[in-house]
Amino acid sequence: MGTTLRMEPADQGTVRRTNLSLVLRLLRSAGPRSRADVAAETGLTKATVSSLVADLIDRGLVREVGPTTAQGLGRPATLLELDGRRVAALGLEVNVGFVEVLATDLAGRQVFHRTRAVRPTASRGLGTLRVAMDLAEEALTTVAPACPTVAGITVALPGLVDLGARSLTLAPNLHWHDLDVRRQLVDRLGRVVPITVDNDANLSALAEYRMGEFAGVRHLVAIAGQTGVGAGIIVDGRLLRGSRGFAGEVGHIKMADDGPACGCGRTGCLESLVGLRALLTDAVPDQAAALLKDTSKGPEARLAPVVARAEAGDPATLDALQRCGRWLGAALAVLVDVLNPEVIVLGGFYGPIAEWILPPAEQAMRAGSIAPDAGGCRLAASTLGFSTAALGGAIHAAQRVFDDPFLVEPQAG
Amino acid sequence: MGTTLRMEPADQGTVRRTNLSLVLRLLRSAGPRSRADVAAETGLTKATVSSLVADLIDRGLVREVGPTTAQGLGRPATLLELDGRRVAALGLEVNVGFVEVLATDLAGRQVFHRTRAVRPTASRGLGTLRVAMDLAEEALTTVAPACPTVAGITVALPGLVDLGARSLTLAPNLHWHDLDVRRQLVDRLGRVVPITVDNDANLSALAEYRMGEFAGVRHLVAIAGQTGVGAGIIVDGRLLRGSRGFAGEVGHIKMADDGPACGCGRTGCLESLVGLRALLTDAVPDQAAALLKDTSKGPEARLAPVVARAEAGDPATLDALQRCGRWLGAALAVLVDVLNPEVIVLGGFYGPIAEWILPPAEQAMRAGSIAPDAGGCRLAASTLGFSTAALGGAIHAAQRVFDDPFLVEPQAG
Repeated sequence: MGTTLRMEPADQGTVRRTNLSLVLRLLRSAGPRSRADVAAETGLTKATVSSLVADLIDRGLVREVGPTTAQGLGRPATLLELDGRRVAALGLEVNVGFVEVLATDLAGRQVFHRTRAVRPTASRGLGTLRVAMDLAEEALTTVAPACPTVAGITVALPGLVDLGARSLTLAPNLHWHDLDVRRQLVDRLGRVVPITVDNDANLSALAEYRMGEFAGVRHLVAIAGQTGVGAGIIVDGRLLRGSRGFAGEVGHIKMADDGPACGCGRTGCLESLVGLRALLTDAVPDQAAALLKDTSKGPEARLAPVVARAEAGDPATLDALQRCGRWLGAALAVLVDVLNPEVIVLGGFYGPIAEWILPPAEQAMRAGSIAPDAGGCRLAASTLGFSTAALGGAIHAAQRVFDDPFLVEPQAG
Repeated sequence: MGTTLRMEPADQGTVRRTNLSLVLRLLRSAGPRSRADVAAETGLTKATVSSLVADLIDRGLVREVGPTTAQGLGRPATLLELDGRRVAALGLEVNVGFVEVLATDLAGRQVFHRTRAVRPTASRGLGTLRVAMDLAEEALTTVAPACPTVAGITVALPGLVDLGARSLTLAPNLHWHDLDVRRQLVDRLGRVVPITVDNDANLSALAEYRMGEFAGVRHLVAIAGQTGVGAGIIVDGRLLRGSRGFAGEVGHIKMADDGPACGCGRTGCLESLVGLRALLTDAVPDQAAALLKDTSKGPEARLAPVVARAEAGDPATLDALQRCGRWLGAALAVLVDVLNPEVIVLGGFYGPIAEWILPPAEQAMRAGSIAPDAGGCRLAASTLGFSTAALGGAIHAAQRVFDDPFLVEPQAG
């Protein structure tokens, strides 16, 4: 199939950058190992590896750890591991009722994490965006002493993010459209830190692919249950974005001929059946209005009454969770037919209710897909909690340094 | 995102093979050009290019064509173009009611093409496969004098083809399951010619991506209307196969709560609404039974009464085509939401009726997808006719030589 035809003539700097990146990515994905291991696994000579490692140590991206126990004869080898504690990467999620920032160093150690509730009325305007910018600024200030380099900020948005224009086209649940979120952040935070915007479900998929229980599974779908429902799709180890970046918009697949009204203006969309509003309205009808209004509680607290009644065996709540699972499974069957993934991971608010929705969802997914055994697809709940989009943002922002270690200056002294 | 970490140490043979492949693929995709152009576009030295081209000419894969008109000063350059007329590649489609073989040389010139009708009763057993093997043997014998090298045979099957086992898992319309089609062909045709099996819609997508009106569009979906309905999905220039090879099975997406019975045993599948049986039954109810029975006519002839009545303005037929277009468009909206393609091409039996089904399909696709303007997706009818799966098979089989020109021996004398 079509591949790049142009073989760029590589200059010395390009080769060095590529090789530094290769060693750094190997240490990230494969864990601590000796210089000799790195040479064997990359095909580079030992002399080249030594020189590259010296450079990476100089930049604080790699460090030596104590010698391993000698295996057999010979000297014990010093191991190398990913360091990068002086480089931060920020993920910033802007969503309905809350904003969240999560910063990690290059090795994925969390260095800052904060969530702020935002009144939904503020979301309709740009209140949420202002809170997000405050929070990003706070994060940058806080991490600055320990992390003089910031790889970047990646902003997770619950809507269509245009790859070309790098701006938001539509976020129905925020009532935003055609908004250059990136520009606003650049104006506020300055041009020093690279800022990218991306779809929240895409970033959740990235978090699952890098750090989740199914990390490394090359055909993976992450379903992100926030106020809306979206999918991030990994195909053969790469995010499927489509021609403009709009892929994975499963929340508005039409599921029911006479379905409920959806926030997008249509009826019967998946989101109108299994989104947060639908779930609360069906599972705890007496409390739904109050729960939907009071976003200060955060998604976990808002789901607590559903979980409590399900645990108490309330038949109406259990029936509602069954229905939610069945509708979700019917939509997953479509994804199985179209994408044939190896695993589908349910995240966001589906996590706390996974115990009840997974069995009917899996049954509906298997019954609804044409391939026997759902083409081998497994269905599982995320183990990453509620912060997957922000975490995915941090992972995405950190990638810049893995691609180009020259972005981090050698340390003085 | 995850990429190959291992840098294979390249020996001389590997480098030579890679560079021969690079030059050959450049001449395929970019057309005739001079040695100097090839050097400039690949980054290889002129001396290396001259040596590679001499080798490719020796193998009959490239030939020189007359000098171009000199542009400006300097000597006119001799152009090189893809040759490969002594190498054949075969695509073999096995489908309901017919088998088809199409052979091309490496430059895509057709060297053999034949279709044979098979009685549907024979399809239920392995009669169709026997006819296919006869036809493949006939093709091999016929092309042998002109094409001493056969790159391979790729077999298009209307069902789930397991990537790992390289065998057929399920083809509902042929009533086949768990059948090692490849093994049967190898046993009959011998081990000399490499034989691959693949899904028919995948191969149609490959044909569209290489030779269709939208060749080179990197996010493309081809809808293959045969007896059943399938999709071949190109994402960023590569076939989306999924973890086992089952991706693109759109024919069995559930579209209607109370839909008609489908050949797969479920109800309301897309295929039960817009497959050939549904279309004929709805559009020409008085003739449908006879048309469905008499497969000797081939798909074009069977559609002729539908086209004739539509052209005559028959209201019942026009209504049926409207319904077909609307259901199809509703399913395309799902693909737009999930995949965000740049173009969707309707092939197979949708071609002759495109005039009537495209407008309602496009309207339903736009109305049903969440991205404004369907995310920029265009909808069009294929210009490749009915033989796209067989053509895609030939293209697929030919690829082996583009990847490894060493497969073709230098010509004696």
